[in-house]
Amino acid sequence: MAARLRSNSSDRQRLIAAVRERFGESVAVTDPHDIAPWLNDWRDRYHGRSDAILAPKATDEVAAIVTMAGQLGVPLVPQGGNTGMVGGATPPEDGSALILSLRRMNRLRSISADNNLAVAEAGMILANLHDEAGKVGRRFPLTLGARGSCTIGGLISTNAGGTQVLRFGTMRSLVAGIEAVLPDGTIHSGLSGLKKDNRGYSLDQLLIGAEGTLGIVTAAALKLVPAATARAVAWVGVASPQAALKLLRSLDTGTRQIEGFELVPADSLALVLKHVPGTRSPLESDSRWHVLIEATAHEGDESPDKVLDALLGQALASGLAADAVVAANEAQAEAFWKIRDSISEAERAEGPTLAHDISVAVETMPDFMVDAAAQVERAFPGAIASGFGHLGDGNVHFHVRAGTRTAPDWYDAEGPAISRLVHDLVTAAGGSISAEHGIGQMKRDEFKRLAPPGRIAALRHIKQALDPAGIMNPGKLIA
Amino acid sequence: MAARLRSNSSDRQRLIAAVRERFGESVAVTDPHDIAPWLNDWRDRYHGRSDAILAPKATDEVAAIVTMAGQLGVPLVPQGGNTGMVGGATPPEDGSALILSLRRMNRLRSISADNNLAVAEAGMILANLHDEAGKVGRRFPLTLGARGSCTIGGLISTNAGGTQVLRFGTMRSLVAGIEAVLPDGTIHSGLSGLKKDNRGYSLDQLLIGAEGTLGIVTAAALKLVPAATARAVAWVGVASPQAALKLLRSLDTGTRQIEGFELVPADSLALVLKHVPGTRSPLESDSRWHVLIEATAHEGDESPDKVLDALLGQALASGLAADAVVAANEAQAEAFWKIRDSISEAERAEGPTLAHDISVAVETMPDFMVDAAAQVERAFPGAIASGFGHLGDGNVHFHVRAGTRTAPDWYDAEGPAISRLVHDLVTAAGGSISAEHGIGQMKRDEFKRLAPPGRIAALRHIKQALDPAGIMNPGKLIA
Repeated sequence: MAARLRSNSSDRQRLIAAVRERFGESVAVTDPHDIAPWLNDWRDRYHGRSDAILAPKATDEVAAIVTMAGQLGVPLVPQGGNTGMVGGATPPEDGSALILSLRRMNRLRSISADNNLAVAEAGMILANLHDEAGKVGRRFPLTLGARGSCTIGGLISTNAGGTQVLRFGTMRSLVAGIEAVLPDGTIHSGLSGLKKDNRGYSLDQLLIGAEGTLGIVTAAALKLVPAATARAVAWVGVASPQAALKLLRSLDTGTRQIEGFELVPADSLALVLKHVPGTRSPLESDSRWHVLIEATAHEGDESPDKVLDALLGQALASGLAADAVVAANEAQAEAFWKIRDSISEAERAEGPTLAHDISVAVETMPDFMVDAAAQVERAFPGAIASGFGHLGDGNVHFHVRAGTRTAPDWYDAEGPAISRLVHDLVTAAGGSISAEHGIGQMKRDEFKRLAPPGRIAALRHIKQALDPAGIMNPGKLIA
Repeated sequence: MAARLRSNSSDRQRLIAAVRERFGESVAVTDPHDIAPWLNDWRDRYHGRSDAILAPKATDEVAAIVTMAGQLGVPLVPQGGNTGMVGGATPPEDGSALILSLRRMNRLRSISADNNLAVAEAGMILANLHDEAGKVGRRFPLTLGARGSCTIGGLISTNAGGTQVLRFGTMRSLVAGIEAVLPDGTIHSGLSGLKKDNRGYSLDQLLIGAEGTLGIVTAAALKLVPAATARAVAWVGVASPQAALKLLRSLDTGTRQIEGFELVPADSLALVLKHVPGTRSPLESDSRWHVLIEATAHEGDESPDKVLDALLGQALASGLAADAVVAANEAQAEAFWKIRDSISEAERAEGPTLAHDISVAVETMPDFMVDAAAQVERAFPGAIASGFGHLGDGNVHFHVRAGTRTAPDWYDAEGPAISRLVHDLVTAAGGSISAEHGIGQMKRDEFKRLAPPGRIAALRHIKQALDPAGIMNPGKLIA
C-alpha cells in the first residue's frame, strides 16, 4: 500500500476556494473558532488539525467536492456528530486533510409507515429520526447514549450497535439501502427500497462499517418497526454471568418480547451509587451480578409487565435469579436505565479506567469475562477488571481500572500493555477487539497486529481498488 | 479489466495431476461420463466443457487447489447443486476452466438450539439442513423449489430468496458468518459466531451474492429460528394486484405470523389446471387474481388457522377479498402450494415462455406489473405477459409467453428484444433485473448495458483487487 496521502497547503486553499466559488462562502468554514470543537474526538484522546470544514448541503455537492479533492490530492475526513469512540472522525495531526461534515444534510427525505421505511440524510441526528418515526406510529429500533448528537451516517459507517441489538440487530440489519459518494466522485444510489436485488457485490454492505474509508455515506433507507405500545424494565440479582446467560435463555423460550439484557457487576453498581447523585440500588439484597432487562410490547402483544412478572417469578422459584424487581412506573424504569448508562462516568470519577469494546461468542462470554478479569488482575496486581453490558450479544465493555496502581502516567505507562493482554485473550477466544465501536485510529495498530495477514491484505486490496489515491479518511482502519 | 484468463491444456493436466498426487485419485474426476451432467445448467441453456471436476473434501484442500490454480493460471468454476437459473455454475465453452465441486464438503459441522446457529459446509443440501434443524427443535427459514438438490454454498453465492423472504429475509440476513477460500488461497474464517464484530469491511457480506467470482464459500454459520408448531395455508381471490397488496398490508397490521404471500394470476392458474394432472381450483368462484397465503405459528402463537379465518373474514366483509378458503388439512395445503410451484412447468407445457426475475419497490409492484404487461403486449401483439410470485417482496417472476407469436425460433428471434424491453421498464421504475437469481452468464450483458457505469467500475475494481489473475468463475457477473 502506498504511503499515506499528504496534501500541501496551497492545494487545500485551492479546494476551499473552488468549493466557495461553486457552492457559496458558507460551505467552507475556515474560522478557527468554528473549527476547533470538531478537531478532537469525544473522549478527547485524539487531536487533529484542519484548515476547513466543508459542509455541503446536497449529495451532488458532496460528489463535486470529492471529485475536486481527488484532482487536487486533498484527503477528506467525513464527520457526523463526532461522537465516535475510536478517533475515526478526527482529522490527522499534520493538518493535511479537510473535514467534510454532513451536518447540513439532515433532512428526512421520506417516511412511510406502510412500507416501514424512512429515507434519512447522513447528517440527521438519531433522536430526530426516533421522533419522526414515532409521528407515523413506527419506531427505528436502534438507540445508544449519544442519540441526541450522533448521526445516521456515522451510525452506518461504524455499524453501530447499542442496547437493542438483541432483538433487532446492529445497524447493518436495519439498513435497506445506501446513497454514497465513492472516492472517484461517483454517486452510488441504493435508496430504491428494493427488498430483493442480486446485481453483484453489495456496495451498501461494503460501506457499512467502512468508517468513511471507502466513500461518504450521504443518505440511507432505514427499516422501521411498529411503535412499542408499552415497556417494562426489571432489575435482577444473579450469582454469576453464567447464571445471567441461563436466565436470558429461559426468557427467550418464554417470550420474544425481550429487547434489552444488560449485565452489571456489583462493583459497577457500587461505583454508580457512590459517584452519581440521585441513584439508589434497585434491590435491597446484595448480589455479585445484576441484570437490567427490558421487555416491550407491540400492538397485540401481552403486557410486558405481566410477561416479566411471570418469567421472573419462575426464575426466582428455580433459583436462577436471586432477587428481582419490575419497575413500578416509567420514572423507576428510567432510574434503572440511568444506573446502566452511568457506569462509564462513575468509573472515570473513581479513577483511571481503560475501556475495551470486545465480543466473543455469546455462550463463551460468561466464562471469558471471569477468566479474563482474573488473568488481567494477576498480571497487574491491584488493577480491577470487569465487564458490563450487552451479554446477550456476546459483547461487553471490559474495563480495567487502575485501582491501587493509580499514577499520573498510568494510561501511558501501563495502558498499552493491559490492552494488549486483553486483546490477546479476546483473540485467543476467537473474539473481536472491536465489537461495536470500530477500529478508527485507536485500534489500528492492534488490528494489524492481531488480524490474520490474509484478511489485512484483502482489506487493503479493496481500499486500494476503490480509493487508489487515498483521499478517504486517511489514517483510519487500514488506511 | 484484463482479458479473460484462458488456460492451456498442459497446465490443466498439471493441476489435475498435482491434485491427485496430494489428495488422492478420487479428488479429480476426469471420466467424461461423470463430468457430463455438470456441464449444463439446470434449464439446459448453457453448455460448457471441462477436463475435470475437482471435488475436495476439506477447506485446506480447497485452499491448496486454489493456490495451485493461481500459480498455473487455471480458472476454477465453483459448483454446488447446479440448480442455478442464470448459468452461473456452468463452465466456459472453451474448456479452459476446471469445475471445483463442493459436493463432498457436505457435513453439518455443528448445530446448537441454544445459540440458534448451525455451521454447515458449502456442499450440504438445503433439505438436509431443514431436517437437521428440525431434529433439535429449530428451523432454517429459507426454502425454494430446488431444496432437494441446491446447496448452502450456492444459496449464499446467489443470495437466494424463495418463498419465506417476507418474514425472514434473503440468505444475506440468515448468514451469521462465512468460511471461504479467497482467490490468493487465503482461508477467510468467519465462523466464530460473533453477533457483533466491527473490524473493517465485511468479507462475509462481500462474498454473499458474489456468484463465486471473489472466492469459494466452503462453510457458513447460519441462523436458525424456533420450529413452527403449525401452519395454515389459504387461497384468496382478489380483483387486482393493487387489492392483493392492500390485503397484505391489512394482514400485516393484524398479525406477524404471515410467512408466504404469493400472487397468482388467473391465467397462470388456468394453465396449471390444464397441464398439471391432479390439480383443481381451490375456489369455485372466478377471480382475475389469486393469492396463496401461508401463516405459521411458533410456540405461544395463536393458531394460524384462526388467525387467517379471522383476518380473511374481515377482508371478505370489507370487499378486499372476493373469495377465500383456508386449507382444511395438510394435504389441501400441499395442493395449494403445488399450484403455485407448478406455474413455470405449466407455462412451458403451453408453449415458449421467457422468464424474468425482477423486483421494484413493493408499493410500486402492482401498478408496474399491470403497466409493464400492457406495454409488452402492445409492442409484441399476441404475446401474453404476466407476473406471479413474491408480491410482498416486490419481486415477481414476469413471464412473457409467445402466444400467437409461437414459432420454432421464437426464443432467438424475439427473446432478446422482449427481455430488453422488460429490463428497460424495470430499470426505469428503479427496479432490479435480477431480484433473486443473480446475473451469471444470462444477464451479464444486460447488467453491463443497464447498470450505472460507476457501479460497474466499482465492481470491476473490487474483482480486480481480490482476483487479479481472474481465476475465479470466469465469464460470470462482471468477470
